[in-house]
Amino acid sequence: MKTIQQLTFLLILTVLSFSASAQFRMPKPILSPEITADSKITFRVFAPEAKKMTISGNWMPGWGTQVEMMRNDTGLYQLTINPLPSEMYTYTFFVDGVKTIDPNNVMVVRDGTRNESMFMVPGEKATMYGVNDVPHGTLQKVWYSSPTLNLNRLMYVYTPAGYTESNEKLPVLYLLHGGGGDEDAWTTLGRAPQILDNLIVSGKAKPMIVVMTNGNPGDAAAPGAAPAKKETAGQNNPGSMGSGKFEESLVKDVIPFIEKNYRVIPNKDNRAVSGLSMGGMQTLYLSNNHPEVFSYFGVMSMGLVDMSRFGGKNDPAERIKGLEKLKASNPKLYWIACGKEDFLFQSATDLRKFLDDNKFSYVYHESEGGHTWTNWRIYLSELAPKLFK
Amino acid sequence: MKTIQQLTFLLILTVLSFSASAQFRMPKPILSPEITADSKITFRVFAPEAKKMTISGNWMPGWGTQVEMMRNDTGLYQLTINPLPSEMYTYTFFVDGVKTIDPNNVMVVRDGTRNESMFMVPGEKATMYGVNDVPHGTLQKVWYSSPTLNLNRLMYVYTPAGYTESNEKLPVLYLLHGGGGDEDAWTTLGRAPQILDNLIVSGKAKPMIVVMTNGNPGDAAAPGAAPAKKETAGQNNPGSMGSGKFEESLVKDVIPFIEKNYRVIPNKDNRAVSGLSMGGMQTLYLSNNHPEVFSYFGVMSMGLVDMSRFGGKNDPAERIKGLEKLKASNPKLYWIACGKEDFLFQSATDLRKFLDDNKFSYVYHESEGGHTWTNWRIYLSELAPKLFK
Repeated sequence: MKTIQQLTFLLILTVLSFSASAQFRMPKPILSPEITADSKITFRVFAPEAKKMTISGNWMPGWGTQVEMMRNDTGLYQLTINPLPSEMYTYTFFVDGVKTIDPNNVMVVRDGTRNESMFMVPGEKATMYGVNDVPHGTLQKVWYSSPTLNLNRLMYVYTPAGYTESNEKLPVLYLLHGGGGDEDAWTTLGRAPQILDNLIVSGKAKPMIVVMTNGNPGDAAAPGAAPAKKETAGQNNPGSMGSGKFEESLVKDVIPFIEKNYRVIPNKDNRAVSGLSMGGMQTLYLSNNHPEVFSYFGVMSMGLVDMSRFGGKNDPAERIKGLEKLKASNPKLYWIACGKEDFLFQSATDLRKFLDDNKFSYVYHESEGGHTWTNWRIYLSELAPKLFK
Repeated sequence: MKTIQQLTFLLILTVLSFSASAQFRMPKPILSPEITADSKITFRVFAPEAKKMTISGNWMPGWGTQVEMMRNDTGLYQLTINPLPSEMYTYTFFVDGVKTIDPNNVMVVRDGTRNESMFMVPGEKATMYGVNDVPHGTLQKVWYSSPTLNLNRLMYVYTPAGYTESNEKLPVLYLLHGGGGDEDAWTTLGRAPQILDNLIVSGKAKPMIVVMTNGNPGDAAAPGAAPAKKETAGQNNPGSMGSGKFEESLVKDVIPFIEKNYRVIPNKDNRAVSGLSMGGMQTLYLSNNHPEVFSYFGVMSMGLVDMSRFGGKNDPAERIKGLEKLKASNPKLYWIACGKEDFLFQSATDLRKFLDDNKFSYVYHESEGGHTWTNWRIYLSELAPKLFK
C-alpha cells in the first residue's frame, strides 16, 4: 500500500499538468455525502460487486434502521434524502451486511469502540458547533498523576483564545463524558472546543478553562493512547462506575493539578462540574459528597438510579444527608437537563421529585429528543452561558 | 442509531450481572486483529452475506495487493498471517470490492484523505513508537496568525515532560509532513510525541519542543478542522508546493509565535528543521534561503527535483548561490536520509552528488525500504538524538 505522500508525488511527477490550487489533493471521483444548496443530501459508493448497500444514520428513527441505496448500471449505489435540519450527523454503510465507514468521506468520529462517518448540515447548529473564522482556544493533551487511581492519566485542557497573552485568572468547568466514552468524547462528538470558542467570542459565555478527563477509573486514557495495562492483580481495579473513585480522583488529583499549572481562580465559585449520563451520575456524586468544591452543577441525561446496580450504595438516608450538605454549601446553580425521549427520563423525573420534596431549588431544562450527542452539545451551549456570572 | 452511552447503560440496566472490571466495555464478540504469543496475526470479520472478503496491508509487497480471507460455515471470514516484525501496520478490508476499515478494530489512522485500520506488533519498534509507562510530554493544538499566508492556522506544539515544572529554555525542532498530509500527520502516523517521549526519557535525545505545522500554504488546517474557505478570488491562493510561501510563513510567522509564547532558546543553534517528501523539499528551500535561521537540517526521502514541476524555479545558478550562503552559515548538521527502494532515491543521489561536487559536508543515512511512514518514524528516532548536542 503506497503512502499518500508517494501517490501525491507520483501524480505530480507523472500525470498532472500543474494547477496552482489543486496540487495537494488526490482526485476524488465520488462525492459523498453531497449537500446541495436545497439541503438535499446524497450518499454514494461505487460497489459493482456488492449485492446490497444500505446506510444507517443517526437521523433515522428507531434502533439500527437501515435504508437501501439504489444501484445504477455502472455499479454506483446512491441515496438522496430530503433536507435535514442543521446538525452534526453520523452514519455508517453496510456493504452486503458488513458495517463500514463511507470510503469517500474523510470525516470520521469515534463513539467509544465504534468509528462512524460524519457530516454537518449548514445552518444554526453547524455554526454553533463549527470551526468559524474567530479567535480559537488552545486544546492540550496533558498527562497527570493520579495517586487516587494509581495511574498516570491523560486529559484535555481547553484554554480560551487570549489566555496566553493575558494575566487574567479564569474559572474552570470540569466536563465529564458518558459510559463507554473516554477523554476524547467531548472534543470530538461533543465539539466542546468549538462550542466554547463560539460562545466566548460572541460574549455569551465568560472565558473559562474546560477540563475533559477520562471518567473510567480503571483506564489511563482512550484506546491506543494508554500504556499496556499492568497485570498486577488489583492494581488497576479501582472499582466500578458507582464506586466514587473517579470522582475522588477528580477532587484530589485533577483539580490540584489544574490549579497548580494553569492561571485559574482556585475557589468554589469559580469551579463548575457537568456531565452526561455516567458523567451526570458522577456530577450527582460530587454534588452530594463534595459540595464545598463546586458552585455550579450540570446534570445531563441522568437522574436517580439504583446505585447498587453500578457497584455503589443505594442508601436513601445517605442521599438526604448529601443533599443537606449541598444545601448548606449554597451552590449558585444546580441545572438538570433531559430529553423527553431519553430512556433515563423517568430517573430525571425522580431526581426532580426528590429535590422538590426536600425543598432544594434547581433549574430544569427539558428538551425534545433522547440520549444523544445532539442534545449534549446543545446542553453544553445552554449551560456554559450560565456559569460564573 | 443509539449512542455508546445509551448502549452501555441499557446493557448495565437490563442484561449484565455486574463485574467490576468490564462494565464500561461493550461486548466484542469478534477479535480482530488478534496477535498471538507466537506473533501470528489473525484478521476476522463476520460477513455471511458477502461473496468475497479481501485484506490489503502495508506489509504486503507491491501496489494494491489484496489477499483473500477464508469463509467458515457460519459466515466468519478469517485470515492468519505469519509473524511480522515489530512495527506499526495499517490495513483495509474490501467487502465485495468496497474498501472499509476493520469494523472490529477501534484503532483508525488517517493518511491524507484515507482512513485505515492500525495495529502494532509488539517488540522493538512498538516500544520505540508506543505509549510506554514513562513521563509524557504535552501536545497542544494551537492557532496562530499567518499574515504571510493571510490565514489563521492550526499547528501542534509538543512540549516535553517536565516543561511546565522547569524554568529551562529549550531548543525547537520544526517537523514538516509530506504532500497530501497535514498538521495531524506527525502526531498520528508519525508517532512523534511517543518517539520523543521515549528518546528523552532514555537520555538519547535532549529535551526539545517539536512544532508540527500544516505545510499546505492554502490550508488553515486538516479537513474538518478549518473554517470554510473564503471564496474571495486569490485570497487563499498563495501558490503551489514550490512557491516557497509556506517556508516564508514558517520563518516570519511560526517561529516568532513560538519564541514569544514558549520558553525557548531563540537562536540558530537551537533551531532544527526536518521534513519528509514535500517537507524535505521545504527543508531544502529553507537551507538555501534561510540558513541564518537553523543550524540543523534533516532531509527525509527527498533530493534534487525539477522545481518547475512544483510551481517553483529550476535555476542552477540560484541553487549554487543558496549553497554558498548555507556554507557560510556553517550549519552543525545537514542530514539526508533515504530508502533504497524510495521512488525519489535517484533525486537523493543527485542531491548528494551536487553537495559533493560543491564540497559541502553532510551526513547520509541510507535505509532499506521506500517512501513509507515506517522509514520516517525511524528517521525521526535517528535524527532527534543528533540535534542540539
